[in-house]
Amino acid sequence: MSMNSFGHLFRVTTWGESHGPALGATVDGCPPGVPIDEAMIQHWLDRRKPGQNKYTTQRREADEVKILSGVFEGQTTGTPVQLMIENTDQRSKDYGDIKDKFRPGHADITYFQKYGIRDYRGGGRSSARETAARVAAGGLAREAIRALAPNVQITGYMVQMGPHRIDRARFDWAQIEQNPFWVPDAQAAADWADYLDGLRKSGSSVGAVIEVVARGVPAGLGAPVYGKLDTDLAAAMMSINAVKGVEIGEGMAAAELTGEANADEIFMGQNGPQYSSNHAGGILGGISTGQDIVVRFAVKPTSSILTTRKTITKSGEETEIITKGRHDPCVGIRAVPVGEAMMACVILDHLLLHRGQIGANRGHIG
Amino acid sequence: MSMNSFGHLFRVTTWGESHGPALGATVDGCPPGVPIDEAMIQHWLDRRKPGQNKYTTQRREADEVKILSGVFEGQTTGTPVQLMIENTDQRSKDYGDIKDKFRPGHADITYFQKYGIRDYRGGGRSSARETAARVAAGGLAREAIRALAPNVQITGYMVQMGPHRIDRARFDWAQIEQNPFWVPDAQAAADWADYLDGLRKSGSSVGAVIEVVARGVPAGLGAPVYGKLDTDLAAAMMSINAVKGVEIGEGMAAAELTGEANADEIFMGQNGPQYSSNHAGGILGGISTGQDIVVRFAVKPTSSILTTRKTITKSGEETEIITKGRHDPCVGIRAVPVGEAMMACVILDHLLLHRGQIGANRGHIG
Amino acid sequence: MSMNSFGHLFRVTTWGESHGPALGATVDGCPPGVPIDEAMIQHWLDRRKPGQNKYTTQRREADEVKILSGVFEGQTTGTPVQLMIENTDQRSKDYGDIKDKFRPGHADITYFQKYGIRDYRGGGRSSARETAARVAAGGLAREAIRALAPNVQITGYMVQMGPHRIDRARFDWAQIEQNPFWVPDAQAAADWADYLDGLRKSGSSVGAVIEVVARGVPAGLGAPVYGKLDTDLAAAMMSINAVKGVEIGEGMAAAELTGEANADEIFMGQNGPQYSSNHAGGILGGISTGQDIVVRFAVKPTSSILTTRKTITKSGEETEIITKGRHDPCVGIRAVPVGEAMMACVILDHLLLHRGQIGANRGHIG
Amino acid sequence: MSMNSFGHLFRVTTWGESHGPALGATVDGCPPGVPIDEAMIQHWLDRRKPGQNKYTTQRREADEVKILSGVFEGQTTGTPVQLMIENTDQRSKDYGDIKDKFRPGHADITYFQKYGIRDYRGGGRSSARETAARVAAGGLAREAIRALAPNVQITGYMVQMGPHRIDRARFDWAQIEQNPFWVPDAQAAADWADYLDGLRKSGSSVGAVIEVVARGVPAGLGAPVYGKLDTDLAAAMMSINAVKGVEIGEGMAAAELTGEANADEIFMGQNGPQYSSNHAGGILGGISTGQDIVVRFAVKPTSSILTTRKTITKSGEETEIITKGRHDPCVGIRAVPVGEAMMACVILDHLLLHRGQIGANRGHIG
Repeated sequence: MSMNSFGHLFRVTTWGESHGPALGATVDGCPPGVPIDEAMIQHWLDRRKPGQNKYTTQRREADEVKILSGVFEGQTTGTPVQLMIENTDQRSKDYGDIKDKFRPGHADITYFQKYGIRDYRGGGRSSARETAARVAAGGLAREAIRALAPNVQITGYMVQMGPHRIDRARFDWAQIEQNPFWVPDAQAAADWADYLDGLRKSGSSVGAVIEVVARGVPAGLGAPVYGKLDTDLAAAMMSINAVKGVEIGEGMAAAELTGEANADEIFMGQNGPQYSSNHAGGILGGISTGQDIVVRFAVKPTSSILTTRKTITKSGEETEIITKGRHDPCVGIRAVPVGEAMMACVILDHLLLHRGQIGANRGHIG
Repeated sequence: MSMNSFGHLFRVTTWGESHGPALGATVDGCPPGVPIDEAMIQHWLDRRKPGQNKYTTQRREADEVKILSGVFEGQTTGTPVQLMIENTDQRSKDYGDIKDKFRPGHADITYFQKYGIRDYRGGGRSSARETAARVAAGGLAREAIRALAPNVQITGYMVQMGPHRIDRARFDWAQIEQNPFWVPDAQAAADWADYLDGLRKSGSSVGAVIEVVARGVPAGLGAPVYGKLDTDLAAAMMSINAVKGVEIGEGMAAAELTGEANADEIFMGQNGPQYSSNHAGGILGGISTGQDIVVRFAVKPTSSILTTRKTITKSGEETEIITKGRHDPCVGIRAVPVGEAMMACVILDHLLLHRGQIGANRGHIG
Repeated sequence: MSMNSFGHLFRVTTWGESHGPALGATVDGCPPGVPIDEAMIQHWLDRRKPGQNKYTTQRREADEVKILSGVFEGQTTGTPVQLMIENTDQRSKDYGDIKDKFRPGHADITYFQKYGIRDYRGGGRSSARETAARVAAGGLAREAIRALAPNVQITGYMVQMGPHRIDRARFDWAQIEQNPFWVPDAQAAADWADYLDGLRKSGSSVGAVIEVVARGVPAGLGAPVYGKLDTDLAAAMMSINAVKGVEIGEGMAAAELTGEANADEIFMGQNGPQYSSNHAGGILGGISTGQDIVVRFAVKPTSSILTTRKTITKSGEETEIITKGRHDPCVGIRAVPVGEAMMACVILDHLLLHRGQIGANRGHIG
Repeated sequence: MSMNSFGHLFRVTTWGESHGPALGATVDGCPPGVPIDEAMIQHWLDRRKPGQNKYTTQRREADEVKILSGVFEGQTTGTPVQLMIENTDQRSKDYGDIKDKFRPGHADITYFQKYGIRDYRGGGRSSARETAARVAAGGLAREAIRALAPNVQITGYMVQMGPHRIDRARFDWAQIEQNPFWVPDAQAAADWADYLDGLRKSGSSVGAVIEVVARGVPAGLGAPVYGKLDTDLAAAMMSINAVKGVEIGEGMAAAELTGEANADEIFMGQNGPQYSSNHAGGILGGISTGQDIVVRFAVKPTSSILTTRKTITKSGEETEIITKGRHDPCVGIRAVPVGEAMMACVILDHLLLHRGQIGANRGHIG
C-alpha cells in the first residue's frame, strides 16, 4: 500500500518535490520487450512542458527525462523502470511574506496541518510539477499498450474554459494539435485566446473541463464492483492536481435522462456488438463495451492570482496575501497531456489484469 | 490486490450474487473494542431495504445481517468481521426470452464478454443487491469512527431527480428523514412524488444526483497525490452501480469560476482556521480542511423499462426486448444510504491511515 | 492491504474464530470457467479433518464446506468465491481457571496484549481451525491450476517427527496415503506410531517437519526480488500456526555446502534444460527452473500438555497451569494438507501473475 | 501490488540493475519529522560496501547515496524518500564466452526463461548490488523507529560459516564489530579467517548462517494469521539474494522438541510479563512478546567459482563454464547488514500498522 502509487499490475509510484534535486516515477510491472528510449518519453513530456507560450507558467524547466533502470538494449526488461527528471530551475528568490502566509485555495495549509512541514518554496508534492512524472510513465504505458492492443488511441482535449464550451457540431480531431489549448474546435480556439489573454493581463485565472477519449479499447476490460474500469479512471483523474469532478460518458447529466433516452441500443456489427449511441461512455457495469471510452474532468482555477485575499499566518494571525510572479491563467491547459497519461496507465493496467485473470475474452458474441 | 475490495487499512471485500444463497462483506482492519451487534448494523440496512414504498423495487428481501466472526461479547476483536445477508427471495420464475437477450444499458453484455458467464437470473455481481453488503460495512465503520472522531456526522440526501433540483434556500436537514426520497426540501419532496408516480405508471425511469456530507471531520486526513481523500471518495462513489459522475465541492462547476471566486478565504476561528466559503468541499490538495466534506454523484436511470428496445442475443442475432416485472423508477433513492456507507468507510480508513503514519496532526495553527 | 489475506491476483482472505458460528475463506481473482463443486473441495477438507484417528484432536467437527458465491452451474464465474464452514462442535464447557491464566507457548498472551481481547474459549484467529479455510481455498486453487498448467502435482508429507527422520533411501510416494502421518517411508510410519502413542499417553507432544513438493511447475514463475516465488512460499508456510522455520531446497543446510557442491549443473533435455541435481529446490533467483519445487517447514510441538507449567494470570499474578482435555500430540500431522493448500495457492497466484505481465515464457532455450 | 516492493505502511520499492546508471529505493509511508541526512544513511551503506577486505568482492563501488526527495531542512516530510546510488564501476570488459553460457546456480537461466532478456553484464535485478538499496532504506527505518520505540536495537551477526558454528558460550556482543565476519565469538573469528582464506585462494566458496536480533521491541506487534510478524520477517529475509532458509527462535530445531521443552514459562517482571527462556524467538502466534526477536537465515555459497562446471548455452548446446574474476568466497558476510536492514524495515512497518489499527497496546497485564 502506498499513498503515492496507482495501478494494480502496472504500478506507478511518483516521488519528488518541485524544489528538490529531482522528481520521477518508479514504474513496476511493465511487460518485458517493449521498445523504449528516452526520446520516446521526452516526446510526451515536451507536450506538457511549461513556458511554451504565454498561456502557461513562465517557469522554464528543461524537463529532460533520464531512464535509470529497467531498459536494456532499447527494450524494457520487465523490472522497475526509473524515470527521473532533474529540477533545473531552482533559482533562489525572495519568498518574502509568502513564507509564513497560507494561500487561499492552496494545499499549503492542509499540508502543514497534516505533516507539520511547511515547504514555502513551492507546493511540495502538491505542486503541478508532480504531473511531469505521470506524463513520463504514461509515455511508457502507451508503448506497452501497442503490443497488447494495437488499435488503442488515446486523445485528450479541452471542451470548456471558464464559461465557454466547444460546439460539438464543429468537433474536429485534426484541430487539437493546432492550437495552444488542445481544443477540437477552431472557432473556439480563436475566441478563447482573446478571453484568456484578458484574464492573464488582469492577473486572474479560470477553470476548465478536459475530455480524454480512448478509441479501440477491446470489450471486456474492468470488473463489476470496486475494480471497475470507471472506478480506476475516476480515481486516476481525481488524483490530478486541482481536479474537482470526474464524469464517464453522460456523467452528471445522466441524472436528467430517462431510461429510454439513456440506454444505448445494441446492434450486430461485423466485428461484434455495436451501439446506437454512447451515453455509457464505453463502460457498462464497470467493463468496457468496445466503444470509445469517454472521461471528462474539471480543473479548478489556480489560486495564485493578483487579487488581494484574506488569509492567516502559520501562527494564526489574520492577514492578507497577494500572489505575484509566474503563474498559469488556466492550469487546465497543461492538464490535457496529464489526463492522457493517466488514461494510458489505467488502460494498460486493465489489459494486464484481464490477461492475468482470464487470458482472453471468453464470451464471444455472434 | 482484489477487484472486489476497497480501503487501505479498513478493508472491505464484498462477495455474493443476487441469486445465490447469500452475499456479504468481509471487513478487515477494524480497530478492536468497537461496540457492535447485529441490530446496530440492521438499522442501516433497513434504510436501504427495497420494497418499503411504491417508489422502490417490489422484490422483498428480509436483508437480515448475521455477524459470523470478529465480534466477541458485543465488541469487535480486531480480526475480520464477516457480515452475511442471506438471499430469501429467490423464487424461480420464467425468465422467458430474457435468458438469451442482452438488455440495453445493462452490464449483462460486458459481463458475458469478459467472463463467458451468463447468469440470466439477475445481475450477478452487477446487481444492486451487492450494495447491501456495503451498507452493512458502513454501519460498522460508523461505530468505529465514533471512538476516533466523535464529532463526525455523515448524511446523504437527494439533490436532483431527473430535471428537478432542490432549492438550496429551502434546505432543511430535518426534512431528510421525512420523505421517501431523502430530500432536504419539503416542497421538492411533494412535487417529486407526483413526478415519480407518473414515471412509475408509464414504466419509465429517471436518474438522480445524491449529495453526501461528512461534518466534523478533522483537518489533516488524506495525502497530496494518489492517496488523496478525494481520490478515494471518487473511487468509492464511482464503484456504486449506475454512477456516472462524481464531484467534490464545486465539482464540474469549478471550471466556470475564476480564481477569485473559487478560493475560500481563511480566517482564524476559536478552534483553528475557518473559511469564508466551502467551494473546496472540505478538501484542499487531497487533505481535509476541517470544513464539511461534500461529495455528489449522479446515478443513471435504470434500464429496466417497459419500452421496447433494440438489442441482440447471445448468438448475435438482432432482436427486441422489453423488461417486465418489478423495477425501480429511480434507483437513485436507494443509492442514498449506499453513498453514506461509502463515505463512512473512506473516512474511517483515512483516520486509521493518518494515525498509522503520523499519530496525530502535527502542524498546529494558532 | 489486509493482515488476513495472502496472494496477489489469486487473493485469499480467511475469517472466523474457532468458537464463533462459522469460519471461511473469501477467495477473489479465481479465473472463470473452473469446474468446481462442494464435493471437490470437501475431498481436501476431509484429509485435514480432526478426530479421524487417535493421533489427532478428538474435537469432532463436520467441517462441511458451503459455497455461498462465485459459482454458477458448476463453474467459477470469475467473481469472489465464498467458502463457509460452520462450527458445529461448540459445546459449552467449564473453562475453569483456564479462563484467566495464560498458557505458555500459546498466543493468548500476545493476542491479549495487542487487542485487549481475551477469548478464553479457544484460540480466536490463532486456532488451528483457521487452517480449514486455507485447505478449502487450496482445493479451489488445485482445480484452477489444472486449466493453466495441467502437469502440476502437489504433494505434502512428513519427513521428521520429533527426533525421528525418514530414510530417503526408502522414499516411496505410494506410501504417503497409506499411514496416518503421511510419511513416504513404511518403516518410519510403523516406528513412529509407537513413539507417538507413548507421547499421547503421557500427555506430551512433539514437533515435526513437513515437506511439500510441486512437480510439473513450468519454468519462469516468480520474480527476482520481493516477488520471488520462494519469498511468497516462505511467507505462506510461516503463516501457518506453529511454524517456526521454512526451507527451500537445501534450506539451512546450504550454509554448509561449497559452491561446487551446491550449484546444480545444467544439461539439455528433450523439453529444455535439465539439472544434475536439485539443491536449489526448483527455484533460482526467485524464479522456477522447471524442476520440482521443494519446500520444508518445521511445526513446533503443541503447548497444550499435561505437565504443570508456570504462568501468570490476566491481572499479573504468578500461578501454574495444566491443560487438560482433547489435544494433538503432534499438530504437524494436520499441517500436511495445509502446506499443500498453501503451495497450491502460491503456484496458482504466480501462474496468473506471469500470464498478466508476460503472457507466456519469452526466453526459449534450444 | 508490485513484485519489487515490500512493507505495508512503510513501503520500500527498489529499482535498478548492477550495470545501469544507478539503483535505489523509493521509500513511501515514512512518518514526517524524522531527522535524516545522507551521512546517516551512508553510515549503514559503508558497512555493506564491497571491497573493504580480502574476503569480499573486489568490485569497487563508491556506493554514495543521494537523497533526491522527501527530506526538507534535515527532516522527512512524510512523502516519498528517493534514495539513489549511482553505479560508478561500470568498466567495460570482455565478457567472452560468459555472454552466451548460463552459470550453474545463477539466476541467469530462469531470468532469461521468464523475461526473454539476457543481461550478460551482471545479474540484472538478481545482483547482490540490489541489496545496497535495502540497506539505505533500512538506515532510514532505523531513524524512524527511534521516535516510536526508542529502546529498539537491531544487530546482525554470523553464527555459521560452512561447517563452522560459533560457540554460544563465548557469545560477546562487543566482538561483532571487531572482525570482518561480524562474528560474536573472537575465537571463531580467528579460526574462520584462515578457513576462508583457503577457500578464496582455491577459488571456492561457502555458505553461512546469519542471525539478526531485535531487542527492545514492544509486545503486541504483528497479527495472528497472514500478517504475522514472523510471516513478514520470513518473506523479508527470503527475499535477500541466495537465502534458502529462514528460522524464528528455535527454527527447524523446534521439530525435535517436546511441548514441555519448547514452551517458555511466564513470570511477572517489573514491567510486565517475563519468560524463562526464548524458544519462541520473541513471537507467539505472530505477535511480539516483548522478548528479543530472533531470526536466522541461511545464505548459499556463491556459484561464481573457479571450478569448471557443466552447463548449456542460450541456444541449448551443452558446454562447460568457469567463472573468473572478482567474487566473494562467502557472500554471507555482506548479508549481515542487509538482514539488519530488513529487520528494521519490518519492525517499523509493524509499529505503524499497530498504531494505525489500535493506537496503543490495549491489554495491560499487571
